[in-house]
Amino acid sequence: MEPKTLPGFMELLPQDQILFNKIYDKIRKVYESFGFLPIDTPVLEYSELLLAKAGGETEKQIYRFMKGDTDVSMRFDHTVPLARYVSEHFNDLAFPFKRYAMNKVYRGERSQKGRYREFYQCDIDVIGNETLDLVYDAELPAIIYKIFTELNFGDFVIKINNRKILNGFFENLELEDKITDILRTIDKIDKIGRDAVRDELIKQDITYNASEQILDFIAISGSNEDVIVKLDNLNVESETFIKGLDELKQVLSYMRKFGIPEENFAINLSIARGLDYYTGTVYETNLVKYPELGSICSGGRYDNLTSYYSNQHMPGVGISIGLTRLFSQLQEIGVLEASKKSIAKVLVMTVGTDDLGYTLKVANGFRKAGLKVDTYYGDRNIKVKMKYADKLAIPYVAIIGETEIENKTITLKDMKTGEQIEVTIDEAIELIKGS
Amino acid sequence: MEPKTLPGFMELLPQDQILFNKIYDKIRKVYESFGFLPIDTPVLEYSELLLAKAGGETEKQIYRFMKGDTDVSMRFDHTVPLARYVSEHFNDLAFPFKRYAMNKVYRGERSQKGRYREFYQCDIDVIGNETLDLVYDAELPAIIYKIFTELNFGDFVIKINNRKILNGFFENLELEDKITDILRTIDKIDKIGRDAVRDELIKQDITYNASEQILDFIAISGSNEDVIVKLDNLNVESETFIKGLDELKQVLSYMRKFGIPEENFAINLSIARGLDYYTGTVYETNLVKYPELGSICSGGRYDNLTSYYSNQHMPGVGISIGLTRLFSQLQEIGVLEASKKSIAKVLVMTVGTDDLGYTLKVANGFRKAGLKVDTYYGDRNIKVKMKYADKLAIPYVAIIGETEIENKTITLKDMKTGEQIEVTIDEAIELIKGS
Repeated sequence: MEPKTLPGFMELLPQDQILFNKIYDKIRKVYESFGFLPIDTPVLEYSELLLAKAGGETEKQIYRFMKGDTDVSMRFDHTVPLARYVSEHFNDLAFPFKRYAMNKVYRGERSQKGRYREFYQCDIDVIGNETLDLVYDAELPAIIYKIFTELNFGDFVIKINNRKILNGFFENLELEDKITDILRTIDKIDKIGRDAVRDELIKQDITYNASEQILDFIAISGSNEDVIVKLDNLNVESETFIKGLDELKQVLSYMRKFGIPEENFAINLSIARGLDYYTGTVYETNLVKYPELGSICSGGRYDNLTSYYSNQHMPGVGISIGLTRLFSQLQEIGVLEASKKSIAKVLVMTVGTDDLGYTLKVANGFRKAGLKVDTYYGDRNIKVKMKYADKLAIPYVAIIGETEIENKTITLKDMKTGEQIEVTIDEAIELIKGS
Repeated sequence: MEPKTLPGFMELLPQDQILFNKIYDKIRKVYESFGFLPIDTPVLEYSELLLAKAGGETEKQIYRFMKGDTDVSMRFDHTVPLARYVSEHFNDLAFPFKRYAMNKVYRGERSQKGRYREFYQCDIDVIGNETLDLVYDAELPAIIYKIFTELNFGDFVIKINNRKILNGFFENLELEDKITDILRTIDKIDKIGRDAVRDELIKQDITYNASEQILDFIAISGSNEDVIVKLDNLNVESETFIKGLDELKQVLSYMRKFGIPEENFAINLSIARGLDYYTGTVYETNLVKYPELGSICSGGRYDNLTSYYSNQHMPGVGISIGLTRLFSQLQEIGVLEASKKSIAKVLVMTVGTDDLGYTLKVANGFRKAGLKVDTYYGDRNIKVKMKYADKLAIPYVAIIGETEIENKTITLKDMKTGEQIEVTIDEAIELIKGS
């Protein structure tokens, strides 16, 4: 039988998995440093629960099956399970409820480049009980800023918008009943360009004049200060627009107080995100040098998470990093460090002796000093053992022969330089830790 | 719609999830400290791959469904995916291949007390290419010893046996064709007792005399030294038996060199584990005070992992901790710490002011010092904010009002003692870190 995975399922070799886990661990650490709590919902849920809100596309793409009499499905995101969780455990949670969820979600769609059927989503959301302060809308970009600064994938910009500005603007043009279609068309502007978008808008029975107004509006650019001034000067007479602009101003002011540098965020009026989902602030994040990757971290404010499961009114704001996709993209463009990573810092091995006692004493000594230690047991020849260390990219090898046992030392080999020196265990620890 | 999970799926509240993750992280840390490499296989695989080796029971219990034309199943353990992984990636791996897998596996069986349909298995295995040194059979108990010492759930004993001793003993009685049935019956001895086991053996057409010999053999006990002497004195004339006894002696001798204290391991001749799977050393682990929990960490040596997927001969040895089940058992018997755990060490909040700048400066200062910090934004009254800290079990609250802003201080409240003092940010960091 040919051993192979299903198409569209990412599986990494250990050296890549180590790197993936390092990124995962860093994201988790930042989420926790802001006090977010872990939750871990089941991969399987009742289909009717998962699909309560989902549209036709989601339903087509979901992994759904019968187990006995029960109609079950694999989760396709972390948001619907969060809505179910918050509704189910409402009385046991403290609000605002800040949680992170970093695990796999599933799509049944045909796999294509960059599309996975199983992928890690690393989400945080803050859920308020009845209300949620606008400062949280600024805390999430502060977290995005911290994560991508620490991950060091290069310059990035957090693009920010507010759905009320969009909605109000279209109300003013008396196009509020077409917002969904228009926003979907506008969403393509980076891909197909201004003229093609205008043509599509006109096909949707929008006048040339209105189309041009819409495109001028979307094209508003400049520094964040400039954009705000231009939006003010539009004098749009819509309460929704005015409220959205006011929220945006406040969120920007908070973001500055969070210490996010001005070059790392930019108002972008073409950002709309999920069309019927977000109701206020929306975000996308781009790597400056690699805009073709699309958004690497997105999210926004929604008015009520739990309408399908609860009578409570629970506004929230959240972001998500699609880690599997991001990792594979970064690998492809060569942004990830080329050097292989190891788990163990040192491989302990014997040569020409089988004195396990001393070998284990050395390995234990290293471990007690906090080092991760691999050990090669058995009497294979030294070349085989060295090849093992090399293949696993372990930076140091501790060689133990009869001389070392007698001298109570080890011969430490630096695998990068090839240098070998005979040292005590303590000296070896110092050398390895200092490297 | 009623928000609820499927039966048999464990879902924890955040405070329990924090504790669960602490245990998970500790296990992972020990696995890595011995140089094991992470791998993360898909939850879904081709059904024919997963079921190649599985028997009727597994097939009945698996989550299996059609997606389009593809017959897919959710993994029911980490061993079969490991076999597929090692076969598929053979040329890219270094052998012995040491990997850990710590994620969810699935069973479709009806849920009953302590039985989950989705649960974490925390596995390590060492896979040799053609051969695998016997020292690895002793390293795994050394890892079990380290994990359960660090987890501190109370005294534990690693029970050890060797399948060749069992097999050889039964060959000698000319009962080798009944080994599987006999071992299955013997496996019940702790539950149903000696007499009931003898009755069952006799029903299987084993003579009273042979049954008694089997039961005497299983009952051999005493110190590890004593048991070895008694086994030697049996003078069983079976090559398999002699080889098994020799392996056991060696493994015990290695285990002592690994520094496992004598009271933490015991030969137990009734341990057989998976009946047609293991071929040498087998382990179980029990909490001394809670034998009713059954084995909390089990495993053993197998002769060939990959026979269904590869022509290579790959012997291995592995152990597994069923973390979801263990966690729920420990919660039930009250072994887990009663005190709630928090993510954040300190909650920063304002009272009677909305000066976000100073608040964020304090929170950032704490974070830079390595503390996990939660922040309560918005102008709710102090009682609401204190209740939040209390519900999340956050040990310290940093209160910021107009006085503190003016003095560049904070008022730090110790939530356990109720004590409040006005201190500088640096003093607060020192106090929180020292606690």
